[in-house]
Amino acid sequence: MSDAALPLALDAMGGDHAPAAIVAGARRAIAELGVDVLLVGQPEAIAAAGGDELEVLACNEVIGMHDDPGASVRTKKDSSLVRAAEAVRDGRASAMISAGNTGATMASALLRMGRIKGVKRPAIATPIPVPGSTPTILLDAGANADCQPEWLVQFAQMGAVFATSRFGVDAPRVGLLSIGEEETKGSTLVKEAHGLLAAADGIHFVGNVEGRDVMGDDVDVVVTDGFTGNVVLKTLEGGMRFIQGKILEAAASSPEREQAFSVLWPALEPLVEELDPDTYGGAMLLGVDGVCIISHGSSSERAVVNALGVAREMVAADLIRAIAAAVAD
Amino acid sequence: MSDAALPLALDAMGGDHAPAAIVAGARRAIAELGVDVLLVGQPEAIAAAGGDELEVLACNEVIGMHDDPGASVRTKKDSSLVRAAEAVRDGRASAMISAGNTGATMASALLRMGRIKGVKRPAIATPIPVPGSTPTILLDAGANADCQPEWLVQFAQMGAVFATSRFGVDAPRVGLLSIGEEETKGSTLVKEAHGLLAAADGIHFVGNVEGRDVMGDDVDVVVTDGFTGNVVLKTLEGGMRFIQGKILEAAASSPEREQAFSVLWPALEPLVEELDPDTYGGAMLLGVDGVCIISHGSSSERAVVNALGVAREMVAADLIRAIAAAVAD
Repeated sequence: MSDAALPLALDAMGGDHAPAAIVAGARRAIAELGVDVLLVGQPEAIAAAGGDELEVLACNEVIGMHDDPGASVRTKKDSSLVRAAEAVRDGRASAMISAGNTGATMASALLRMGRIKGVKRPAIATPIPVPGSTPTILLDAGANADCQPEWLVQFAQMGAVFATSRFGVDAPRVGLLSIGEEETKGSTLVKEAHGLLAAADGIHFVGNVEGRDVMGDDVDVVVTDGFTGNVVLKTLEGGMRFIQGKILEAAASSPEREQAFSVLWPALEPLVEELDPDTYGGAMLLGVDGVCIISHGSSSERAVVNALGVAREMVAADLIRAIAAAVAD
Repeated sequence: MSDAALPLALDAMGGDHAPAAIVAGARRAIAELGVDVLLVGQPEAIAAAGGDELEVLACNEVIGMHDDPGASVRTKKDSSLVRAAEAVRDGRASAMISAGNTGATMASALLRMGRIKGVKRPAIATPIPVPGSTPTILLDAGANADCQPEWLVQFAQMGAVFATSRFGVDAPRVGLLSIGEEETKGSTLVKEAHGLLAAADGIHFVGNVEGRDVMGDDVDVVVTDGFTGNVVLKTLEGGMRFIQGKILEAAASSPEREQAFSVLWPALEPLVEELDPDTYGGAMLLGVDGVCIISHGSSSERAVVNALGVAREMVAADLIRAIAAAVAD
């Protein structure tokens, strides 16, 4: 039996809108995409959310959004997150998807699935929308707050495989996030990583890039430590939301402006849609031995549908084997 | 003679639009603000740019935007940047302002003016626009790519003094940039700095903040290392410019939309103005023993006028003495 014939293990209990949005997303994905979903969670909660006809892997515990990741994964062995990761490990599911506690999702995946052979540290790869072009893959977006230079080389390898599998980018251009294009610019970590990346085989390394390049289309993969990557992600999210809010405020400030905004809206809507984090269904934890999708805590039904679609696609593309090959080179 | 009676030393040769925009800005600031300006640079270039009636400190060398900061400051002793810093050191000017090579501006200021007693490392403090509120002071925005935790405590002290002197913020709220609000989140540097900040006297420390808070109004000063700070700054600049470009594209996509956009524009213009980095005239290098303003390389005439206004204000507020007092506490 190939992995692709297995259902996708979806954490029904994780996320700001769980279980309602999760169950609704599962139902829609089954109907619209024809995916096979294994909902992991408390049967009563799932049934109450309208999931009583869906396949359920029953468990009794829930890891909360603010629980300590390490401790909760150790102590809540019957939690939906731990059970979802075990389902992948045990060959009951082909992938795990959660909009829950990010740290606990990482810990569950790492402890239950393990790492791909040769991978030093898993990393979170997040697609950053670039309207009019393929997204930029940013990694590490938060798995490792402190990094070693050689981990960044693996992030580059894994990120490039992901850009190809997920967005069809041929020979992805990899940039190293720094504070100047010259190789002498940056922190000690970045300067050391620059040398390693420039010397590495099989990576199309284009050198240092800056914060402004993340939303540009001169680079396909941006490699950084998990602290900087997470800060960049949240800065962009905050900035975009801020601007959208201010524009809506301006548009609502008089009836004439409201009318004018409605004329502009058809040209702006695709942009807003592309910038919506729900569009890409979430980030991927690359380097663990199974497909693991980390969705935004605020995931809507639509985000869940997209995440399930991506999970199926990454299973079909045999992403894990491709990463293993890239890292083994 | 008080410092405030001395002219402001303005590097006529630094910046993408130098000397034309610099000289034009100086003329306008003299006329409109009544400031006293000492233009530092090549007399012929200044005269050709329309500055022949202005007071000039003549020098013959120029440090280019891409010159190595350390080497150029050592070898180009008759450069406008080095001479501007010397003018402050020697009591010929009350402040230095440059839109030139940022690294060389820092090196000139540091080597010629020296540090304020007790300051471990100077830091670049950049006001991040928060339309509808006072800007957030982000520091370090690029002076120190690798930082020690105790430096961040001084950045907090200096940033708070600056928020008060520059924007009149009483008891500024200081946040530490991290990747989660809990004090256990973040890099080793951030976790150590958190403990020191929480224990420090005289700082209104509100704990960890995230990238999304930089443009919010829950915090007045955001402290981080110079690598992360510079990445945040460029990410925001890039993101904002990107969105503005996309909106203009949408607005230009049909005559009806163009018309609609012109109706909205009066409500959007103040926002665009507030987000324009030229509005605040530049960043300040805090911790050196003299007022030093680092303007954006792309500074326009308007940015130069604003930078001169800020420089005069910071001299009048005796910022240097206030920082010395805060750091000595």
